[in-house]
Amino acid sequence: MVRWEPDSRGRLAQAAMELYGERGFDQTTVADIAQRAGLTERTFFRHFSDKREVLFSGAHALQELLVNAVVNAPDSAAPLEAVSLSLEAAGNLFNARRDFSVQRQRIIEGSAELQERELIKLSSLAAALANALRQRGVADPTAGLTGEVAIALFKISFERWVSSSEPSDLAEVLRDSLEQLRVVTATT
Amino acid sequence: MVRWEPDSRGRLAQAAMELYGERGFDQTTVADIAQRAGLTERTFFRHFSDKREVLFSGAHALQELLVNAVVNAPDSAAPLEAVSLSLEAAGNLFNARRDFSVQRQRIIEGSAELQERELIKLSSLAAALANALRQRGVADPTAGLTGEVAIALFKISFERWVSSSEPSDLAEVLRDSLEQLRVVTATT
Repeated sequence: MVRWEPDSRGRLAQAAMELYGERGFDQTTVADIAQRAGLTERTFFRHFSDKREVLFSGAHALQELLVNAVVNAPDSAAPLEAVSLSLEAAGNLFNARRDFSVQRQRIIEGSAELQERELIKLSSLAAALANALRQRGVADPTAGLTGEVAIALFKISFERWVSSSEPSDLAEVLRDSLEQLRVVTATT
Repeated sequence: MVRWEPDSRGRLAQAAMELYGERGFDQTTVADIAQRAGLTERTFFRHFSDKREVLFSGAHALQELLVNAVVNAPDSAAPLEAVSLSLEAAGNLFNARRDFSVQRQRIIEGSAELQERELIKLSSLAAALANALRQRGVADPTAGLTGEVAIALFKISFERWVSSSEPSDLAEVLRDSLEQLRVVTATT
């Protein structure tokens, strides 16, 4: 019989984030997390496949949001405009959880394993965006290139946003980075 | 006493590439490679730290070439122009070994571990290019963004180049991708 635990997933995630921040990701075990949350390891594994997943469980929803926004962008939107609208939609989502994002970024920067996992996530997002553009009838190499460039914009903007000393609007940082990209590509 | 083996490094690399192509990277052991080359495992480890290094031993030289080309680009070159000159210089190098590049790409696409390693390599190159731009006095976010965009251009161009049915000039594909990027950023 499974004992009911109010918001055990949330408690486990919070305990994990605390411990990753205090000791580093590599030095934290699932047993540590379960203990801090006052739950069992078995409960942890009912909610997360491993200790990395606490930090990456949102990846699937993010990809879905980005892809849907590209597919549903107005017919008139050019490729980069469609992905920019999509990134801004994601930006609004991140704005609502900036503290978590800042904390997560710091944890990821402290672990080579997590940095690799993050690169894989970003690469999958680039491929998913390119596919969404192809669904809109955008041909290659434009589709592939726009997907990669979108993720370059996102990566740089996200890093700027989490490292700024005071809270800012990620969607705004994204628009500014896009403007920078236009300057960079125009001046040569 | 170390017995002298004529070009043992080259023979090991060729044996490894053959076996990775025939069986897949994951299914090939260092013992297999040494046997195919008619050498010992010990000799393999005198030349390569592990079986991945056969595919990544050029990464350091590539980064050095890219960074030097950016640092030494004419003072008048804008950021994207400096990295483009740098990528074209690398392109000419790859042109001379297209067969190896095609073979290497196919092997990498067959192994998740190698794809991860390749992403890490590309991410390091983006960071190195950004640093080289900072040395030229380019400020952030332009430096970081241009580094990431340069690698997006390189990745897409390289994939086009290795998958084209007949040999083409990578430097030319790079220039074409840059032109596509200009179109993409201009039309929004």
